Amino acid sequence: MSDPMTLNQRIVLASRPVGAPTPENFRLERVALPDLTDGQVLLKTVYLSLDPYMRGRMSDAPSYAAPVEIGEVMTGGAVSRVERSLNPKFQEGDLVVGATGWQSHSINDGRSIIPLPGMPSPSMALGVLGMPGMTAYMGLMDIGQPKAGETLVVAAASGAVGSVVGQVAKIKGLRAVGVAGGADKCRYVVEELGFDACIDHKSANFAEELAKACPKGIDIYYENVGGKVFDAVVPLLNPKARIPLCGLIASYNAHEAPSGPDRLPTLQRTLLTKRVRIQGFIVFDDYGDRQPEFLSAMAPWVRDGKVKFREDVVDGLEQAPQAFIGMLEGRNFGKLVVRVSAD
Amino acid sequence: MSDPMTLNQRIVLASRPVGAPTPENFRLERVALPDLTDGQVLLKTVYLSLDPYMRGRMSDAPSYAAPVEIGEVMTGGAVSRVERSLNPKFQEGDLVVGATGWQSHSINDGRSIIPLPGMPSPSMALGVLGMPGMTAYMGLMDIGQPKAGETLVVAAASGAVGSVVGQVAKIKGLRAVGVAGGADKCRYVVEELGFDACIDHKSANFAEELAKACPKGIDIYYENVGGKVFDAVVPLLNPKARIPLCGLIASYNAHEAPSGPDRLPTLQRTLLTKRVRIQGFIVFDDYGDRQPEFLSAMAPWVRDGKVKFREDVVDGLEQAPQAFIGMLEGRNFGKLVVRVSAD
Repeated sequence: MSDPMTLNQRIVLASRPVGAPTPENFRLERVALPDLTDGQVLLKTVYLSLDPYMRGRMSDAPSYAAPVEIGEVMTGGAVSRVERSLNPKFQEGDLVVGATGWQSHSINDGRSIIPLPGMPSPSMALGVLGMPGMTAYMGLMDIGQPKAGETLVVAAASGAVGSVVGQVAKIKGLRAVGVAGGADKCRYVVEELGFDACIDHKSANFAEELAKACPKGIDIYYENVGGKVFDAVVPLLNPKARIPLCGLIASYNAHEAPSGPDRLPTLQRTLLTKRVRIQGFIVFDDYGDRQPEFLSAMAPWVRDGKVKFREDVVDGLEQAPQAFIGMLEGRNFGKLVVRVSAD
Repeated sequence: MSDPMTLNQRIVLASRPVGAPTPENFRLERVALPDLTDGQVLLKTVYLSLDPYMRGRMSDAPSYAAPVEIGEVMTGGAVSRVERSLNPKFQEGDLVVGATGWQSHSINDGRSIIPLPGMPSPSMALGVLGMPGMTAYMGLMDIGQPKAGETLVVAAASGAVGSVVGQVAKIKGLRAVGVAGGADKCRYVVEELGFDACIDHKSANFAEELAKACPKGIDIYYENVGGKVFDAVVPLLNPKARIPLCGLIASYNAHEAPSGPDRLPTLQRTLLTKRVRIQGFIVFDDYGDRQPEFLSAMAPWVRDGKVKFREDVVDGLEQAPQAFIGMLEGRNFGKLVVRVSAD
């Protein structure tokens, strides 16, 4: 029996960016999908997640994951609906989550997708209840070791990871200070998310304002951006400070070592004299087995309104490259997802 | 009752060094000690320990400990003999350990000295069974988390800390690779201490030789020097590598940020993509309560010859400044102690 032909719309890596990605690094293609074979399902993408780590996959520098090859579909997590199933574990109409990439359809053998856990909106599986939320939670709890009364700083505080980090810190009794770009985001972080303060990194007196917002120093700096926020944080670190490190968006586009001065010796000296711990992590590699713990903590907080979140929804797969480029420049406001088809 | 006057010979900080210390930064003084009052003991220094951290105390840059003030006695741990006692806890002739400084005599109220634990030679309380040995042990065990079959690298491998780190790593079943300055030290590290390899950091092909000595990468880099050893190590780090950081002798004399390129972003990227943990520590601040655990592990190893050590003994307090300056240049060979009086 032959399937009705399905046309897949997909975005592939056309070329590797040097510095910031441009629209020319991506190419939209339409290709016919092959027939399903036994055990396979045909998926229709509903929401595609756009995340900073994808910039790393566009380069072939050594990293924790293999790069996307030229001509290959861009990698990415998504929520999809099962359109047809030749796999007894999945029924037509089921919602599933998996790294199915930047495309309207995909074929899967059922081994790299999981049924969507119960949640009010499917896109939450890509944000507060998905990879970004779990990154926030595990890095803060396991490496950050938060203690009531301490001060936490997190950048990109209105974003998918930072917003959760600060709200969980508040739940744990810490002072939470955010850093974000612009007055609108800062207002949202304080008024909606309940952070104690939020500093605009575009301010001319950024370092000074951050210091004022942290009168007792910094015990946890949750690092997800790098760059000048890190520089302003280092002098404020308290003895025994912890720095979970999950991302460095500020330097993802760098393609050569910046000119001096060399800031490494100052950092090393601070690590030594203040007995600081800094630790990089990749959430599913390091904490994959703790997803149930994460969901059982986070789902009630979200349900009870203790952890709020905001989504920045872009319509149409063809908008993904431009939205992604904008995210690397901080133009999104909240977790960025692409609505690829109606949910 | 008046004591017979005791003349104390002491070395004070005459001026703060800019860059490497010179003999002019120190001054030898002779002063009469006051009479003992009730509860005090008069101590005669037997062995004075010289350690890299003392360079930090000569500067008034912010650090984990207050600086030595100009005109004050240089700080330092020592083994002393009780000469006179007006304290019921100490008897004339007792050997004690404490941070009594660079001087021939001192007066103590008994609260900052402890009786010397039993050991074959009193100077061991300043080395393998003292602060350097405990620094080696705690940093390796607690932050390094060694696992049999892994590869460890440690610099200053013939020194007081590095020699113990590598030998304990061997006891725990790791491959131990040392770094030291010169063929004599490297030979000693391999032939006497039993490291698997030792690379001369003066070699023109240092980074390449280190890579060859670590065919399976580096799982633990015990950092006690900083500088170019660190640079050669970073590209060899395995995923989930651990870096206990107890010293940075290579940069102690630096008095301004080195010119570029800026090596910090590369380090941050490595920490992230390889999920590396780096953590500074100060042994008595972080692990002071675990000294019994340390001694109960280390004393038998030393007794059974599983952990060997070497001392570099200099005679006479007046030699301390030159010996200390030489140590910062790597001219000592083994744990550096000054024999201030006969033991």
